[in-house]
Amino acid sequence: MHQPEFHLRLPDWLIQHLNKPLPAFISDQQKMAWVIELSRHNSANDGGPFAAAVFDSSTNELISVGANLVIPTNCSVMHAEIVALIMAQQKTGRYHLEQNSEHSYELFSTTEPCAMCMGAIPWAGISRLVCGARDEDARKIGFDEGDKPDDWMKKFSQRNISVVRDLCRHEATQVLEQYAQQHGTLY
Amino acid sequence: MHQPEFHLRLPDWLIQHLNKPLPAFISDQQKMAWVIELSRHNSANDGGPFAAAVFDSSTNELISVGANLVIPTNCSVMHAEIVALIMAQQKTGRYHLEQNSEHSYELFSTTEPCAMCMGAIPWAGISRLVCGARDEDARKIGFDEGDKPDDWMKKFSQRNISVVRDLCRHEATQVLEQYAQQHGTLY
Repeated sequence: MHQPEFHLRLPDWLIQHLNKPLPAFISDQQKMAWVIELSRHNSANDGGPFAAAVFDSSTNELISVGANLVIPTNCSVMHAEIVALIMAQQKTGRYHLEQNSEHSYELFSTTEPCAMCMGAIPWAGISRLVCGARDEDARKIGFDEGDKPDDWMKKFSQRNISVVRDLCRHEATQVLEQYAQQHGTLY
Repeated sequence: MHQPEFHLRLPDWLIQHLNKPLPAFISDQQKMAWVIELSRHNSANDGGPFAAAVFDSSTNELISVGANLVIPTNCSVMHAEIVALIMAQQKTGRYHLEQNSEHSYELFSTTEPCAMCMGAIPWAGISRLVCGARDEDARKIGFDEGDKPDDWMKKFSQRNISVVRDLCRHEATQVLEQYAQQHGTLY
């Protein structure tokens, strides 16, 4: 039986983008504005209109980035949040980012996570999630967000994962709307 | 900024196992018994006590297999179901298995999916899920199954994904219990 392999590498445009000087990441707003810019670039480079990044909450250091790579990787699992989590774990060498670490980690996502990404966050060792657009903004342009518990944010809070929503929601939603206007593939 | 990469390859023992003649896959029971055997081997080879496989429901052809590789890959996303779905998509070249295909696909999993894997299944293009142990069997030995909607099976049915549960539940649970007795890592 032929055994395929799967290789995940950030796209060239994103690697080039990361080689430029990074802006100051001090406030939540600065971080989110930069991640939304990534989602715009990803959309213009055959990816989906979504991006994410993991930061060290203690030092504000950027640990990893992700963009929706479902179409370029031929893999439905490769949502922006999942790519950012995989890369953060490869970089730190820990499958649970906060276990055996004195640091805490936060995930910024340009849209609230779908059911799969919501499920992935607690396993990854993230204690703070910051979102731009709401899932209804993604559904409005035709993306399916899946079946999450209605009170998933409360359940996150019970797991000591704090959630901030609606940060730069307007700007994040603009990227979604522009993607829809250009008839981007929905999945 | 250093950009890590992620390479997913099945472990050597599993590739060797797949190079042996495969049994006949005609009934659900034959498929599940074989997948449970994989979960036992994975457990004995530094992986978690979980395995999964994708079959073509029309021809009974084995498309891909997965095993829990969280620890060996240092990646919390690499549950058995996710590995099997990624590999099936790489093999077929389709990020939605049933889109642009005349075939339908089924996922066999030795334990009911956690919240992340539950969320991943509809995106992958699977129309039938067959499970061994229940999620309470996994929770009983200390694994966290995450926050799924209480009626997730009904929601799957509304998406035209049928779910069969409790197939060889006893045998699947035995692998979980044996893992717990050997003090396997919980995550």
